[in-house]
Amino acid sequence: MKTDERMIAFGKRIRDVRRSKGISQEVLAEMADIDRSYMGNIERGEKNVTLKKAYDICDALDIDIKDLV
Amino acid sequence: MKTDERMIAFGKRIRDVRRSKGISQEVLAEMADIDRSYMGNIERGEKNVTLKKAYDICDALDIDIKDLV
Repeated sequence: MKTDERMIAFGKRIRDVRRSKGISQEVLAEMADIDRSYMGNIERGEKNVTLKKAYDICDALDIDIKDLV
Repeated sequence: MKTDERMIAFGKRIRDVRRSKGISQEVLAEMADIDRSYMGNIERGEKNVTLKKAYDICDALDIDIKDLV
């Protein structure tokens, strides 16, 4: 799989988990200390998130990063 | 675990895998298209690598990113 496809898959998994937990994008962005529009970019795989930020998102979603990558 | 500790653990795992495969830091840096000094920073957990770059490093090491995060 190409890296860009992986980023799209990564973002999709964030969105799926977030929705399954009934968390709005706005609330997740606040919990992970990320700008809301930037969170939208991440969920669409448009932004190359840093690993630290990926960990922060996982903490906010209370999941293991292995479930996202 | 704090994010910074995770980054240090992430870098240490890269170094361990790289050495176990007998690959020099210089060669890995070239394979992953990363400046060698930057690769040193990553292995010491001093740089907040992007997820794309983490995937590139895993490709170069021929491992699954789940084994590094």
